[in-house]
Amino acid sequence: MDRRSFLRTSTVGAGAAAATTLAAPAYAQGNRTLTMVTSVPDGFAVFDDAAQLAIDYITAMTDGQISFNKMPAGSLVGAFEVFDAVSSGQADVYHSAEYYFLNQHPAFAFFTAVPFGMTAQEMANWYYRRGGQALHDNLSSLFNLKPLMCGQTAMQPGGWFNKEINSADDLQGLRFRMPGQGGQVLGRLGASVQNIPGGEIYQALASGQIDGAEWIGPYADERMGFQEVTKTYYAAGFHEPGSTLSMVFNLEIWESLTPQQQTICKVACEASHAQNTALSLAENGAALARLQAGGVQVRQFPDDVWDAFGTAAAEVREENMGDPIYAEIANSVFESIRESSGWYEIADGEFMRQRNRVNAG
Amino acid sequence: MDRRSFLRTSTVGAGAAAATTLAAPAYAQGNRTLTMVTSVPDGFAVFDDAAQLAIDYITAMTDGQISFNKMPAGSLVGAFEVFDAVSSGQADVYHSAEYYFLNQHPAFAFFTAVPFGMTAQEMANWYYRRGGQALHDNLSSLFNLKPLMCGQTAMQPGGWFNKEINSADDLQGLRFRMPGQGGQVLGRLGASVQNIPGGEIYQALASGQIDGAEWIGPYADERMGFQEVTKTYYAAGFHEPGSTLSMVFNLEIWESLTPQQQTICKVACEASHAQNTALSLAENGAALARLQAGGVQVRQFPDDVWDAFGTAAAEVREENMGDPIYAEIANSVFESIRESSGWYEIADGEFMRQRNRVNAG
Repeated sequence: MDRRSFLRTSTVGAGAAAATTLAAPAYAQGNRTLTMVTSVPDGFAVFDDAAQLAIDYITAMTDGQISFNKMPAGSLVGAFEVFDAVSSGQADVYHSAEYYFLNQHPAFAFFTAVPFGMTAQEMANWYYRRGGQALHDNLSSLFNLKPLMCGQTAMQPGGWFNKEINSADDLQGLRFRMPGQGGQVLGRLGASVQNIPGGEIYQALASGQIDGAEWIGPYADERMGFQEVTKTYYAAGFHEPGSTLSMVFNLEIWESLTPQQQTICKVACEASHAQNTALSLAENGAALARLQAGGVQVRQFPDDVWDAFGTAAAEVREENMGDPIYAEIANSVFESIRESSGWYEIADGEFMRQRNRVNAG
Repeated sequence: MDRRSFLRTSTVGAGAAAATTLAAPAYAQGNRTLTMVTSVPDGFAVFDDAAQLAIDYITAMTDGQISFNKMPAGSLVGAFEVFDAVSSGQADVYHSAEYYFLNQHPAFAFFTAVPFGMTAQEMANWYYRRGGQALHDNLSSLFNLKPLMCGQTAMQPGGWFNKEINSADDLQGLRFRMPGQGGQVLGRLGASVQNIPGGEIYQALASGQIDGAEWIGPYADERMGFQEVTKTYYAAGFHEPGSTLSMVFNLEIWESLTPQQQTICKVACEASHAQNTALSLAENGAALARLQAGGVQVRQFPDDVWDAFGTAAAEVREENMGDPIYAEIANSVFESIRESSGWYEIADGEFMRQRNRVNAG
């Protein structure tokens, strides 16, 4: 397979190709502070919780040998520039959502979420047990990067709308904030899709620059204050059934860590990921109740809108299947979903159905 | 609250009361090997995977300062004697399922699984975000122990039967292996319940000593070989919707660890827990397909059997509610389920329903 043909024409790709010819550096000595760039402001719900907990764990477990100078979006580089900054060595680590980097390679979509893709647990199953980590390593290595899964928003809602969506026609001309492949799906259905960083969504919604936006889930959305400017909230969404965040090291920085330090970083990210998943899912229920008490109306898309999402999602997916890296990852993802969803349906699915039925009776 | 009144009359309880008057020991120096006792043979699917991965992580992250001598069930003490062994200081750490220790305190049930209780994710939500860890700490401290959640079998199937269960009457006189409160529920419905350690179930089933058994799930059950002696496998079970394992330190041993070492143990268990959950859920689907290809018939209990399970489970739960520790934990568990299950149902539940519908269309 010719890796170079799948590299986008950028200085990033050229740098990565050159880097692979260098010998691995010797382990760095003494205490080190790594510069981490992120795609959100400090303290941002869910996103920054995952980055900060991983940092705290690594710092505590190395007894301060490795610490981090976390630079939020806009302080060293912009929200969507963190990839190139770490790839080039301007910064040491980024924490972000990989689907912000589809221009670098469309297959990065799979390491956050794709339409009709994986729930939070299905993602963990794939990443830890069905080759997801290795596929992520391979793709990122083309850009001089070493990734670790680190953060999980869980199911992202359909989002906030200034009107009800009763048919696919209602999506025509809708100015809606949605990144990644989900945005491409909405675009195919006639929406005018905007990719706005998290920190700027509220203002865009409040000023009428956009008609609606999806963000993360009731807990994070409530902290953004979207309920102050719109009251119609669609619950289930097609676009990001389990959105994953990543902590990604510059490859030379990663290789300068001792095996002990590398294990500490890997294990810290696994633990922070698990904590972040629990945070997302534990807090969403309570937040939803508060939003509803404040007048927010919860809606679900009708079946024919889901059908339209499904048709457009399949088209978007097919569009990139000519790229062998993309196709390899896509096939791995959907095979893993098929393999685990059958058991899930007759086990957890049937249990929850029976528990709810028995408890209601 | 008078803690002493909830301690069972045992040397364990007396030992714990005495231990609390001791000053915390100074941090131990140099490399240490801790003796870990477990309730299964070495290499046992899921259970031992969780213990071994946590051990590997701790050893690597401390660069060998802390290592473990893992002693499987029966080598130092028996499968169900690990609690008393660590409580008394005979061993340093155990890895097991807390519901094996209902005789020490009935509330230990909640830290593995209770009938109609938490799924794997609901357990993590509660343990990490809704006070589960603190409640576990409080209960275990009465026995001179410090617990960490470390392992997750996920939804346990109804189990293996030598006949079909078409009504609650079919449970009468059934000799069935099921530990914990689930076994108490079956007992109320007329079954003759056996609590047999994992390593002895196959022989009991093959010899006809029992009519059936539940164990863990398709992946672990397949490795036990139950499909060689019975072909009727009930999928969803009422008894353990998300069975949790724990790594539990003798409290003086825990307090002799440095803060850095304690963080490493805590984070290693969080990561091993997440890996073990993914292992359980990723492997079950593939294993189920193999079992079915080998002639295993998959069944679901009919609604009226679920109703009988529900009635008996509520009775078992009520039985212990006079104990304030039990009641506090039970109320916390069921409040946490209520809080998170509403969002889950309209988010993940609706998404998976729509994904399966759209994909089938």
